Amino acid sequence: MDMPTFFSEAPPKAIILTIGDELLIGETIDTNAAWIAQQLYEAGIEVLHKLSVGDRREAIWQALQEEFFRADLLIMTGGLGPTSDDVTKKVLCEFFHTHLILHEPTLQHVASLLQQRGQEMLERNRAQALVPEGCTVLPNARGTAPGLWFERSEHICIALPGVPHEMRGLITEQVIPRLQEKWPSLQAIQHRYVITYGQGESKVAERLRSFEDNLPGNIRLAYLPGNGLLKLRLTCLHAKHIQMLDDLHQQLISLLADIVVGTENLPYEQLIARKLLERKAKLALAESCTGGYLAHLFTSHPGSSAYFTGSLVCYDPQVKVEWLGVPAGWITNPGVVSEPVARAMAEAIRQKLHADYALAITGWLGPDGGTPEAPVGTVWIAAAHQRQTISRRHQLRGDRQRNLQLSATHALHLLDELIRQIC
Amino acid sequence: MDMPTFFSEAPPKAIILTIGDELLIGETIDTNAAWIAQQLYEAGIEVLHKLSVGDRREAIWQALQEEFFRADLLIMTGGLGPTSDDVTKKVLCEFFHTHLILHEPTLQHVASLLQQRGQEMLERNRAQALVPEGCTVLPNARGTAPGLWFERSEHICIALPGVPHEMRGLITEQVIPRLQEKWPSLQAIQHRYVITYGQGESKVAERLRSFEDNLPGNIRLAYLPGNGLLKLRLTCLHAKHIQMLDDLHQQLISLLADIVVGTENLPYEQLIARKLLERKAKLALAESCTGGYLAHLFTSHPGSSAYFTGSLVCYDPQVKVEWLGVPAGWITNPGVVSEPVARAMAEAIRQKLHADYALAITGWLGPDGGTPEAPVGTVWIAAAHQRQTISRRHQLRGDRQRNLQLSATHALHLLDELIRQIC
Repeated sequence: MDMPTFFSEAPPKAIILTIGDELLIGETIDTNAAWIAQQLYEAGIEVLHKLSVGDRREAIWQALQEEFFRADLLIMTGGLGPTSDDVTKKVLCEFFHTHLILHEPTLQHVASLLQQRGQEMLERNRAQALVPEGCTVLPNARGTAPGLWFERSEHICIALPGVPHEMRGLITEQVIPRLQEKWPSLQAIQHRYVITYGQGESKVAERLRSFEDNLPGNIRLAYLPGNGLLKLRLTCLHAKHIQMLDDLHQQLISLLADIVVGTENLPYEQLIARKLLERKAKLALAESCTGGYLAHLFTSHPGSSAYFTGSLVCYDPQVKVEWLGVPAGWITNPGVVSEPVARAMAEAIRQKLHADYALAITGWLGPDGGTPEAPVGTVWIAAAHQRQTISRRHQLRGDRQRNLQLSATHALHLLDELIRQIC
Repeated sequence: MDMPTFFSEAPPKAIILTIGDELLIGETIDTNAAWIAQQLYEAGIEVLHKLSVGDRREAIWQALQEEFFRADLLIMTGGLGPTSDDVTKKVLCEFFHTHLILHEPTLQHVASLLQQRGQEMLERNRAQALVPEGCTVLPNARGTAPGLWFERSEHICIALPGVPHEMRGLITEQVIPRLQEKWPSLQAIQHRYVITYGQGESKVAERLRSFEDNLPGNIRLAYLPGNGLLKLRLTCLHAKHIQMLDDLHQQLISLLADIVVGTENLPYEQLIARKLLERKAKLALAESCTGGYLAHLFTSHPGSSAYFTGSLVCYDPQVKVEWLGVPAGWITNPGVVSEPVARAMAEAIRQKLHADYALAITGWLGPDGGTPEAPVGTVWIAAAHQRQTISRRHQLRGDRQRNLQLSATHALHLLDELIRQIC
């Protein structure tokens, strides 16, 4: 764990508890737990472990008993919504020796939410306004179930609804600010990021050996690899060290200049989106093997219509020929996964969708496909601008899903490279 | 929990333990735990809970101590790869009072894998062939780290590498068959599925009240809602009841005929893909608000090129006008999110991509956008065939991500409806 052990006192420790039968039968992937972990880590709180249990009283009770006194903070989600049988709230009452009372402000909030939606108030909606006496009620602007905050002998337990956007709103607007008030040392925590591409963790660590050896005791460096990128994070814990943090951030950027692709904590497609917006430039895509995934990455963020014109998912080779003018003969020779095809795709889609930049990709992600010249795992990527087209080949070794994610990262990097060349 | 409590003895119980610092800081979403949970559930094993801990010795040791004797089976992943410092293996040795020995077959396997990849054998590769003495080694065809199987007083602990496709291969080919051998009652477990669309869990449960009341004791029904669909699962535990299971499955399909979209446990896009393949029909898409996500759904499965020709992600309204012949005036009146635009998109893309069926979608997923006629959350979907075009409006209330998933399900359903109407 790279958590800052350089706190004057140890950092607050947290346990994340997610509740729901759907988690235990694998019908739902626990994205809530990952998102909460990220927010706590950012805020300077160390997550000891994550636990998921079913909706049964005994399981929740056992988890509370075993986990509550183990950490400074227990954050739990799930089992608070109007369709659940409120088992979580009952167990919390038992555990904290209290009982449910009507919370008038919540009742009014629920009533006004339902009125907005043109729905009538049912008994199960009214039940949302019942809260354990003595807990702090965290108002939920996005839904009917409020968050519940309990404190006992310096330990905190926070119960949140499991609906992702409600839970996220509560964490950002209620939980983190209140924790920062409770634990003032968290307020001063500052992070700076450097995102790199093209070198693995061990190689980068080697390059940074002397930088790390000379890091002052009040600044920490963490390595966070993922999806073909390596994120570096510098952290300081005191407002008085922010100037030093910024200087070290600049130093890190210079040291790794050849592999830095971003200096903020954003997904790669958003780093590129920002560059396109700054240049008032438009982007178009022609996707074969990524099958719409690249377009999905860009459009999953609000505001993408300001720079993204569209993508042609030209899965059938015939579409490449008819729509993008790839000569029909090229499909077999040099082959549909080849440099000329990728370049022709990029150049054509740029013009046809009236974009300034275009990115094209063709490849075999597996398990099927491949030719002697371009075996499974071969990917050709091209990025085009009016002034220049660049292209690159990658040979991937993962399964279909891993190859998809890696080829998306490689494609984003080639586009990024072109944007920087054109300037 | 809907786990079959109708075992002659109680079903075997499992705990899933995932290991990795990246899980505790939220950099990685724990898809491994969800996938394992699904496989165990399918096999008739009840998952008591899931736990994620960091790469530290103490955390793994504590988890082993607390969890191993709590369940019949502890499955752990992570911390076995060539770049980890093998902390998991060391802790396992300590816990099971054994030590590492060289496993010759694994060493030969590692050597031949590296040779295939043109890499030389490093010390850390050789270390992969060191295994705790006395455990059963589960050969890993896809990578260098084998699975490790320990047994103590009727409790089983299985340690697997964390690389998803290696872990999945080991579970499917090694772990499940060996567990079925160990616990013969699992061998007879059979499931039948019905996938429904359009009615919530409580509504469907109401419709099935008498069916459920009359279910024989040896057949169980489970409700698994998700992403706008509701999955129903019938389970029997003995080979002699399979005929009864099949009869009840047919009965369930008839009872819910108006909302059934599938009778197998497959994602909706694969249920549709199968229908298209049976009809030797091709599919094309025109996506505005889903921004490539629908295309990504279809192309994320191998073999999609047999029916999927492509998708035009026409994010910019101008692309709808120029490429799909939507009259320019329609963009403002009736508006880019409207029935005529969706229908025109579907009909044009069907012809232009030489497909038999086409699906088009235009909408405001939020948080930006919307007009008085089509506020945020409005989605228009159209499905086209040579003989007929159908269209439908939906009003969604989630955040951007939830609206994306729901509109994809609604779109798939409209396409499905058209396919059923045509033939």
